[in-house]
Amino acid sequence: MEREFLAWLRDHLPHHPRFLLGPGDDAAVLQLSGDRCVVTSDMLNDGTDFVSGKSDWKLVGRKALAVNLSDLAAMAARPAAALVSVLLPRHEGLQIGKALYGGLMALAAEFDLPIAGGDTNSWDGPTVISVTAIGQTTPHGFWRRSGAWPGDQIVVTGCFGGSILGRQFEFVPRVREALKLNAEYQIHAATDVSDGLSLDLSHLLEASGCGAELHLDRIPVSDDARRLAASTGDSAQSALDHALGDGEDFELILAVPADEAERLLADQPLDVPLSRIGQFIDEPGLWQITGKTGRQPLVLRGYQH
Amino acid sequence: MEREFLAWLRDHLPHHPRFLLGPGDDAAVLQLSGDRCVVTSDMLNDGTDFVSGKSDWKLVGRKALAVNLSDLAAMAARPAAALVSVLLPRHEGLQIGKALYGGLMALAAEFDLPIAGGDTNSWDGPTVISVTAIGQTTPHGFWRRSGAWPGDQIVVTGCFGGSILGRQFEFVPRVREALKLNAEYQIHAATDVSDGLSLDLSHLLEASGCGAELHLDRIPVSDDARRLAASTGDSAQSALDHALGDGEDFELILAVPADEAERLLADQPLDVPLSRIGQFIDEPGLWQITGKTGRQPLVLRGYQH
Repeated sequence: MEREFLAWLRDHLPHHPRFLLGPGDDAAVLQLSGDRCVVTSDMLNDGTDFVSGKSDWKLVGRKALAVNLSDLAAMAARPAAALVSVLLPRHEGLQIGKALYGGLMALAAEFDLPIAGGDTNSWDGPTVISVTAIGQTTPHGFWRRSGAWPGDQIVVTGCFGGSILGRQFEFVPRVREALKLNAEYQIHAATDVSDGLSLDLSHLLEASGCGAELHLDRIPVSDDARRLAASTGDSAQSALDHALGDGEDFELILAVPADEAERLLADQPLDVPLSRIGQFIDEPGLWQITGKTGRQPLVLRGYQH
Repeated sequence: MEREFLAWLRDHLPHHPRFLLGPGDDAAVLQLSGDRCVVTSDMLNDGTDFVSGKSDWKLVGRKALAVNLSDLAAMAARPAAALVSVLLPRHEGLQIGKALYGGLMALAAEFDLPIAGGDTNSWDGPTVISVTAIGQTTPHGFWRRSGAWPGDQIVVTGCFGGSILGRQFEFVPRVREALKLNAEYQIHAATDVSDGLSLDLSHLLEASGCGAELHLDRIPVSDDARRLAASTGDSAQSALDHALGDGEDFELILAVPADEAERLLADQPLDVPLSRIGQFIDEPGLWQITGKTGRQPLVLRGYQH
């Protein structure tokens, strides 16, 4: 199986001008555009990130790359290459492997991203796929979580909640958006939403050493979150709860100086809407502001590792 | 478990001057010494590369990094960083994870190599560890498999066979040796021995489009290969057979121009012996030369994927 799959890969992995030496040797050699590289790695496994027999393997492969590209977007890094390692069940492994790569390579092509290598294994267990993405900083520098200042506005891309209805596999990582924002606006800090809006925001607060106030009526709630709240009919989980707590939106949370936020929101320079949902404050903690009750601590929801 | 392990990792992953931004953000940012990077990835899984309950987890973690460093050595690349993703059984996962990292970080420290991130997951299945190594080319360029010329001598580091008796976990990747050889000698092509001496040599022949003659009496046979042959008492598997066919020696095979090989072998510049075991020839195929029977095709042995 492995030999047949490796032969299939040799025929299907395209060459790329960034390769000084492509896959097939002991390692690949990449020509970068500078001497800084941005690296991130994510591993997806059957039962946690997808379910064999229910999930579409093409979408699983796509997601394995997309979550890494989302991390590069959160750094405002330009994707340069990816490495892909798979562990496939002996039974049907060839078919699964081809489907995984099918989805992954289609997304890679959208971002002009070469697959620089990886590893292929088979066993009697379930499917595992691990992707490492390598990016490059641009002349505009890179974002980190630790740069938010009190007074900065909290600006987010897109809308939140209910990604389990499909977006968790089909989201487009905000790479192009991040590169455009980094080139044209002053952004103090950023992260992407994988564990949930409120939880990932709290990680950014922790790194920046400040607090934040969220205006709950300004949170962009997705139609999926509304559908999910309506379908369960569970009043304890409103659409807003889903928006605050569901994971895998893979949107960006940005810390933007107040004046710059005015300009950014007036410009709306992206295809996806930008919304201001609150501001960073000196006082630690994450606070919710509603019209009715004023300021209260926000209870964190999301995927706790 | 994951949260506790992540907290442990935060306390144990050392800072490194190569980090412009260390692990803990959405990605890490590395300061390289040039604009070329060398990348490779290997995934090890329970049942194939190690056996839960039999293998020492520290040695498993060490090996997961060492095989990648061996790939960098085969390119004459200087290790710059590694990313480590683990999938741990929920039961005893914390203990296994700490032991894996214990062995891995000790080897990383030997090579002044920062761990730039990765991913930590747990499930009800067996242990999987995936490592990506990032290296840098030096001013002396990098090696590839495809550069051997007819007339070049086949030179190898160390000795071969029987790595299953221990060296498969305890080998030292030939990074320092490769960097020294690349700086001081002309080497046309190289690979490392993971699947077995004869099989990996055949991969180099395929890439270079030439053949080779091996002098069987010059193959450096390890004491482990002799012990293994003696212990099985199986005449069909001599010590030489083990040297030619066993995998995971992680020594280097080098293609060296004839004059340069004379100089190299006279110098013996490494702590590990260098041996000339044959030469590359125009005619395709891998041939064995013995005193008694002259030239015959060599039957390939080794780990066929």
